[in-house]
Amino acid sequence: MKKVQKNDRIGVITNILTNNPNKIYTLTYFCNLFNCAKSTISEDLDVVKDIFNNYHLGYIETVSGAAGGVYYNPLMTDEQIKEFTKELSQLINSSDRIIPGGYIYMNDLLYSPEISKKIGMALASLFRGVEVDYIITIETKGIPIALMTAMALNKPMVVVRNQTKLTDGTAIHLNYISGSKHRINTMCLSTRAIKKGSKVLFIDDFMKAGGTAKGIMELMQEFEAQLVGIGVLMATKVPEDKVVKDFKTLLWLDAVDENNKVVDIYNNK
Amino acid sequence: MKKVQKNDRIGVITNILTNNPNKIYTLTYFCNLFNCAKSTISEDLDVVKDIFNNYHLGYIETVSGAAGGVYYNPLMTDEQIKEFTKELSQLINSSDRIIPGGYIYMNDLLYSPEISKKIGMALASLFRGVEVDYIITIETKGIPIALMTAMALNKPMVVVRNQTKLTDGTAIHLNYISGSKHRINTMCLSTRAIKKGSKVLFIDDFMKAGGTAKGIMELMQEFEAQLVGIGVLMATKVPEDKVVKDFKTLLWLDAVDENNKVVDIYNNK
Repeated sequence: MKKVQKNDRIGVITNILTNNPNKIYTLTYFCNLFNCAKSTISEDLDVVKDIFNNYHLGYIETVSGAAGGVYYNPLMTDEQIKEFTKELSQLINSSDRIIPGGYIYMNDLLYSPEISKKIGMALASLFRGVEVDYIITIETKGIPIALMTAMALNKPMVVVRNQTKLTDGTAIHLNYISGSKHRINTMCLSTRAIKKGSKVLFIDDFMKAGGTAKGIMELMQEFEAQLVGIGVLMATKVPEDKVVKDFKTLLWLDAVDENNKVVDIYNNK
Repeated sequence: MKKVQKNDRIGVITNILTNNPNKIYTLTYFCNLFNCAKSTISEDLDVVKDIFNNYHLGYIETVSGAAGGVYYNPLMTDEQIKEFTKELSQLINSSDRIIPGGYIYMNDLLYSPEISKKIGMALASLFRGVEVDYIITIETKGIPIALMTAMALNKPMVVVRNQTKLTDGTAIHLNYISGSKHRINTMCLSTRAIKKGSKVLFIDDFMKAGGTAKGIMELMQEFEAQLVGIGVLMATKVPEDKVVKDFKTLLWLDAVDENNKVVDIYNNK
């Protein structure tokens, strides 16, 4: 096999790490791929690390020990999150998006792979340093951003349904009361979905009073799992007194004035 | 600004293209990023192109003309699709996955960001060369693989619901008959979701008789849009005579024998 050039190694390493966030690759993996010495790969990784740092492309992290290696951490800086959520709030703050009932049409944004990927990276970045085994969400509109959060963290996603499906097998059902409308809803999750003792991060697109998040918290108790965080794309300013206290949001919704066609959404400053 | 080294440029270009499949970047974009001449970037792109080719990481494609530039096409080769779907069929062919009623539990695979991403890339690769404006799916289990297909193709996803939601605004409703159970179901889609004259690719996790796909085809007529393809993760061998004729699948399900705990799933050979 002919000797692989440094440029080639840098390119291939960058592609593999970028395509697989938070997945650990050993030095041996790259040594075998390029048929070269560990010292060579080690130097290459230093170059790649500097590139990612200098161009704010996320971080290349090193894990030491027997299972050691490197991985790509695509987390955004606080500055990058602010910049992105500002752009996003400008996209949403448009009278065209107001629909009857004072709701805001956001499906085009939530379902865009490019935007949902950035939202997922931003949400994952809010929980920097928090140990997580699963990303949990409830159908339907939160699924894309939850999946993208799961992709950024390289953890499995779990989707709670509004009714049991035959393809779920045995499931746990929980009735909960939506915090804002005092309506009874059901959430169902297959008993296979989450292992006992797991740490779970709840991701959703929207929070009003927080009833759904509280339901998820109670559902996790049934699974003997622990809810370690709640992250939403957008939370309403009112009611200020949510039924869950500890949550993070990228955007705040102050008001939708259907008559005067005004939406007021802003990011964390 | 100090001169950027070739290694750095290769790394940054690889990261940006890898992270944004099917998004066109002009040479000028990279010239400005690195403060260097077009000829330099042109040489760099040739190197990156060779790296992707030689290591089967997908393709770097060139677009000529005024809006010209380069983009990353992450499509899999037929050989890569075969290899991946073989692995996937082995993962699914497990008696542990059989649940009461003869269904197969697959949520852990469908909701894994790593696996759904590969499924999305494989499905996108089946429709190589087909012009597509939207990826359409129906809630719930098909959403992750549809989103990943949309990401690979850099096109928006559209999600059809089983009932209208207030956040959809005005919606078109269609009643359709499931091909296998002869049950009446409803599908709803916001009138804002798809522009007239669009070309739409339907992606779903499972096809039995094809009733849902036929419903989507009829729904698209209401939107004056054209269904240009149907791609599913898994189709059942029986009934052989589906209500839609033209579809592609990654896996075939021959039988689930609940009593003898046997699942028979295979890929296209």
